[in-house]
Amino acid sequence: MYSFKNDYAEGAHPRILQALLDSNFVQEAGYGEDSFTQKAIELLREKLGRQDVDIHLLSGGTQTNLTAISAFLRPHEAAIAASTGHIFTHETGAIEATGHKVISVETKDGKLNPSLIKEVLDLHTDEHMVKPKLVYLSNSTEIGSIYIKSELTDLRDFCKEQNLLLYMDGARLGSALCSDDNDLKLSDIPSLVDAFYIGGTKNGALLGEALVICCNSLKEDFRFHLKQKGALLAKGRLLGSQFYELFRDDLFFELAQHANKMATILREECSNADFSFLTYSPSNQIFPILPNALIAELQKNYAFIVWEKVDSTHSAIRLVTSWATKEEEVRAFVEDMKKSNEL
Amino acid sequence: MYSFKNDYAEGAHPRILQALLDSNFVQEAGYGEDSFTQKAIELLREKLGRQDVDIHLLSGGTQTNLTAISAFLRPHEAAIAASTGHIFTHETGAIEATGHKVISVETKDGKLNPSLIKEVLDLHTDEHMVKPKLVYLSNSTEIGSIYIKSELTDLRDFCKEQNLLLYMDGARLGSALCSDDNDLKLSDIPSLVDAFYIGGTKNGALLGEALVICCNSLKEDFRFHLKQKGALLAKGRLLGSQFYELFRDDLFFELAQHANKMATILREECSNADFSFLTYSPSNQIFPILPNALIAELQKNYAFIVWEKVDSTHSAIRLVTSWATKEEEVRAFVEDMKKSNEL
Amino acid sequence: MYSFKNDYAEGAHPRILQALLDSNFVQEAGYGEDSFTQKAIELLREKLGRQDVDIHLLSGGTQTNLTAISAFLRPHEAAIAASTGHIFTHETGAIEATGHKVISVETKDGKLNPSLIKEVLDLHTDEHMVKPKLVYLSNSTEIGSIYIKSELTDLRDFCKEQNLLLYMDGARLGSALCSDDNDLKLSDIPSLVDAFYIGGTKNGALLGEALVICCNSLKEDFRFHLKQKGALLAKGRLLGSQFYELFRDDLFFELAQHANKMATILREECSNADFSFLTYSPSNQIFPILPNALIAELQKNYAFIVWEKVDSTHSAIRLVTSWATKEEEVRAFVEDMKKSNEL
Amino acid sequence: MYSFKNDYAEGAHPRILQALLDSNFVQEAGYGEDSFTQKAIELLREKLGRQDVDIHLLSGGTQTNLTAISAFLRPHEAAIAASTGHIFTHETGAIEATGHKVISVETKDGKLNPSLIKEVLDLHTDEHMVKPKLVYLSNSTEIGSIYIKSELTDLRDFCKEQNLLLYMDGARLGSALCSDDNDLKLSDIPSLVDAFYIGGTKNGALLGEALVICCNSLKEDFRFHLKQKGALLAKGRLLGSQFYELFRDDLFFELAQHANKMATILREECSNADFSFLTYSPSNQIFPILPNALIAELQKNYAFIVWEKVDSTHSAIRLVTSWATKEEEVRAFVEDMKKSNEL
Repeated sequence: MYSFKNDYAEGAHPRILQALLDSNFVQEAGYGEDSFTQKAIELLREKLGRQDVDIHLLSGGTQTNLTAISAFLRPHEAAIAASTGHIFTHETGAIEATGHKVISVETKDGKLNPSLIKEVLDLHTDEHMVKPKLVYLSNSTEIGSIYIKSELTDLRDFCKEQNLLLYMDGARLGSALCSDDNDLKLSDIPSLVDAFYIGGTKNGALLGEALVICCNSLKEDFRFHLKQKGALLAKGRLLGSQFYELFRDDLFFELAQHANKMATILREECSNADFSFLTYSPSNQIFPILPNALIAELQKNYAFIVWEKVDSTHSAIRLVTSWATKEEEVRAFVEDMKKSNEL
Repeated sequence: MYSFKNDYAEGAHPRILQALLDSNFVQEAGYGEDSFTQKAIELLREKLGRQDVDIHLLSGGTQTNLTAISAFLRPHEAAIAASTGHIFTHETGAIEATGHKVISVETKDGKLNPSLIKEVLDLHTDEHMVKPKLVYLSNSTEIGSIYIKSELTDLRDFCKEQNLLLYMDGARLGSALCSDDNDLKLSDIPSLVDAFYIGGTKNGALLGEALVICCNSLKEDFRFHLKQKGALLAKGRLLGSQFYELFRDDLFFELAQHANKMATILREECSNADFSFLTYSPSNQIFPILPNALIAELQKNYAFIVWEKVDSTHSAIRLVTSWATKEEEVRAFVEDMKKSNEL
Repeated sequence: MYSFKNDYAEGAHPRILQALLDSNFVQEAGYGEDSFTQKAIELLREKLGRQDVDIHLLSGGTQTNLTAISAFLRPHEAAIAASTGHIFTHETGAIEATGHKVISVETKDGKLNPSLIKEVLDLHTDEHMVKPKLVYLSNSTEIGSIYIKSELTDLRDFCKEQNLLLYMDGARLGSALCSDDNDLKLSDIPSLVDAFYIGGTKNGALLGEALVICCNSLKEDFRFHLKQKGALLAKGRLLGSQFYELFRDDLFFELAQHANKMATILREECSNADFSFLTYSPSNQIFPILPNALIAELQKNYAFIVWEKVDSTHSAIRLVTSWATKEEEVRAFVEDMKKSNEL
Repeated sequence: MYSFKNDYAEGAHPRILQALLDSNFVQEAGYGEDSFTQKAIELLREKLGRQDVDIHLLSGGTQTNLTAISAFLRPHEAAIAASTGHIFTHETGAIEATGHKVISVETKDGKLNPSLIKEVLDLHTDEHMVKPKLVYLSNSTEIGSIYIKSELTDLRDFCKEQNLLLYMDGARLGSALCSDDNDLKLSDIPSLVDAFYIGGTKNGALLGEALVICCNSLKEDFRFHLKQKGALLAKGRLLGSQFYELFRDDLFFELAQHANKMATILREECSNADFSFLTYSPSNQIFPILPNALIAELQKNYAFIVWEKVDSTHSAIRLVTSWATKEEEVRAFVEDMKKSNEL
């Protein structure tokens, strides 16, 4: 049984593990003040082309989102998210648990734009409603779509104009930046958003997300929030050495490229077999619509999520690839799909 | 510069790292539903002699405390802790951030007892005050003391009688259980408290605490709380494989014994040199009172915390040992201490 | 300028004020332990036909909702509400501020039913999502519709089966119970819901809502929650004497009947004039759809809310009546409406 | 049985009730936007000599404290209060329920000063602890002491220097300002603190506290917080008309003077009888230390709180007077005290 269920089914890339081994026996300061973390942060600043951003390393996406958003908002302020957004659907109310409403917006492709946000603002007119203050977007989104530079520029301009904060969940930022459709560089992002994170967990790390705070007014006292939310690891080197390894050469991008390449094979072969897709997704998640009988057949040898019923005989499935996905398994899946489809 | 500052200055024990390597390339379910975590939990249940306890693996102590305590209490209920207790002093108000007051109690040795708790209960008489509901204790405590079995039995009986929950922070449980003064077995604990955790981070793991919920009524839906507080790691194997390795033989205890042995050398040599101690601490933290001149001399080659001014010429320092503390460094410290003291 | 904007534009009914005067100079216990409050609670228990319910008097609807719902739910549990529900739209995220998500449901008439709730439950399948636990409904609803007995019975049965709590916001319960369509008695309600409140503020009181807790497991320690949320008035008699006066004879119902009668005149005359309605509303709020020109004309002499644009030349307006609405003003409005419409 | 238990045993002063009657039948905007509230705010600004302060009317002290403090602080920031402070002891953890720790300080007279605050700051040195940000003081204090102008000036200067907010709970501000020891004018306060409230409930109103926000950066969006915490009354006139009446002439001060005068009689007569006091309290609360036998005798005809055991035969009691305390009852109490003492 080979799994296309998610992008965290394996552990870490071997180079990441080696980096952990190499960092292990030195005595270091705790709680992110170790030299590995400091080196990783310096390196990330360099890659981002911005010495003035603050960077903090955390363990996972939900933790990063809840720590950042609760630190950034006052009690009456709310986040706006696509209804497919991770904070709205799959974090067990983590943002609400810190006291803030998440206002959801229906989208056709998982992506927000100024016009959709404007509709929310127009409905929130007085103090009997929460005050929308932070726009949450994911790149790539939870359904595999990505933002191109002009879309982010529009969002940035609109948010500035409306005095909104723009926050990007980058759990799958690697895959977005390595998409064939992408025109965005990592170093473009700090000038486009107020804060974002670079996801390690879903791109080859054992665990780890690098939160980048670009907006000056959001930086103050952030380590207090990390500690208060249980996000400050005693052995911070665990995160620092991984991020250093991911970015000291192009490992981060190579891993994402591999994941995307595997997804592209699946996408093209589904197309070749005349299957359509639930949504256009040029990243490491694809959502082909298959006959239910074929799905049942494939489930005998492959694990994946049946995403949504489409009609009485068809459903969309979600296939996720990662840095660890083996091309031979992808090819085998494609062969099995073709063979079973012909029956 | 050798550090006696804390017990998380190094990474993980080599066997722990090897276990991570061994678990790395298998595809596994995420979020703690992997086979490594399941095996670790089974093993811990066996070691605890209790199949009916629920066990969850988390990343750190603050995270464990805040997730557990906020899940266990209703909004108007409060925790009682020694004023030296970690949740009261060193977790940036993490418990209060989930809405609950921590009522502090002055103690002489960092330990709570029924009489001290009774004083709190007597003061909290009506709905204009919070309702004390959970007793938080640490074993070993933040100042190195430990609870013996009869003390815990008394606390358990008193808490039952008063309808209080008893929760034990076991960040340094290994050191407590391996203390020469200890008469408690790991398997005694589930019948003495409602919930506790076994600390991995400060006893040889890279990160990880195993929360054990003994009381049935506290078990329901706990994984929701883990997810909501950002405590559910995508690659749960990272925690599972470490705890399995710590407990598949006696590694957990061997590491704690080593730490205690190193502390004992320091303690005895301080005694031999006629230094007194701030507090009696038969675990891996000791607090000798040294002349300030000697402290200044030792600081040239050793890192440690100056804990408290005692009089105009003396201060207490904190020396912490760990699984990784090297005996030759301990001996060197002792020699330097003796030599400098003679000057 | 006469206002049909809301049902709290005037102060209190004269008998309520007289009751305040009569209660004023006696020395009484504070914080709701006064004899006026106790008498009001006894009287309400009698009217409800249930000696076993717990009753607490609070100042307003948002305060009642947030105090009750946060006391009833554990941190990972959520409320389900119609998207028109007051807690979802008009309480500035008060429920989320206590840590709980409000899951919204689109409805055609502001009313929930088992099938709509079932859809929510089907989507919330694991610990990565909040756990739906409490069904919030308003009677009458925010758009004037009411629940009949069989609808509430169905909801009650469904909630029992699904282990959900059923909570009714009764800010306008008086108007609902006095609607021509209603078949529910006040004394029916305790066996249909787990908790509800009887709204005083919008039915003749200066301020005040009577929260009735029917479900035993929700009663414990509720006064702690009142105090913690700032809901315990020092001079509790202010609430007690008002509720006693409202219920010692049929004043509460008489006031609601008057409001409904005034709304009925408006509704019938709008119908007579061939205007349609945004929604069917047999209570004290109506939503006729009028030509924009007519609306502009009416706004010269009357205050009301333009609720929603319907097409390029028509909008729905909201007209609210109350215990204090004067029939001559209603008649004048109708005349003006007819006259202007003919032009 | 005559009560000296508290200062909210009676309803409202007759003029307050008359003001309510007079305001009752006009149609007005809701939620504090009515003309009565606006007039009260204008009047208060005039009395404070400051047009630039923001003023909001709330229902009670706990509600005011929790709404203001949670609006003013970021999640990691804490309040500092005397251990006798109302928010620390008698608000059921209301501040903690909004996520903030209250750091308590032992005092001899219920009053904070720069040196006591400095000790707290010195202990809170890094992000493992909360960040002390707001100094909470009560004037008069919970044990009857008052702050004189120079004390407040020192506190203001120290707080400015340390970047701390200074907040004054004025539940009994009337009594403080009318104390014989007082040298502070109402109009002095806005330049001495960042925010404070003028208590109505304990000085003749039915309910109501006027929160005055002096510091510009704390003003923004405050009405959102009012609504979110359930503090925005639909019929805001209820608060507005009372505060207007209290301040349109000197009623507020006359009522407090009466309360103080009654306390002075009790204080002087206790002194004359050679009783000492638990604490020096020149306001409307006194704490004489009486023989237990005398206390038992007095309890037959008078209600008051036995505050604290002093030795095996003596206890301190608390006597509270108010605008409504009758001089003949005070005289009767004194006579009974003298008579019983002689026995």
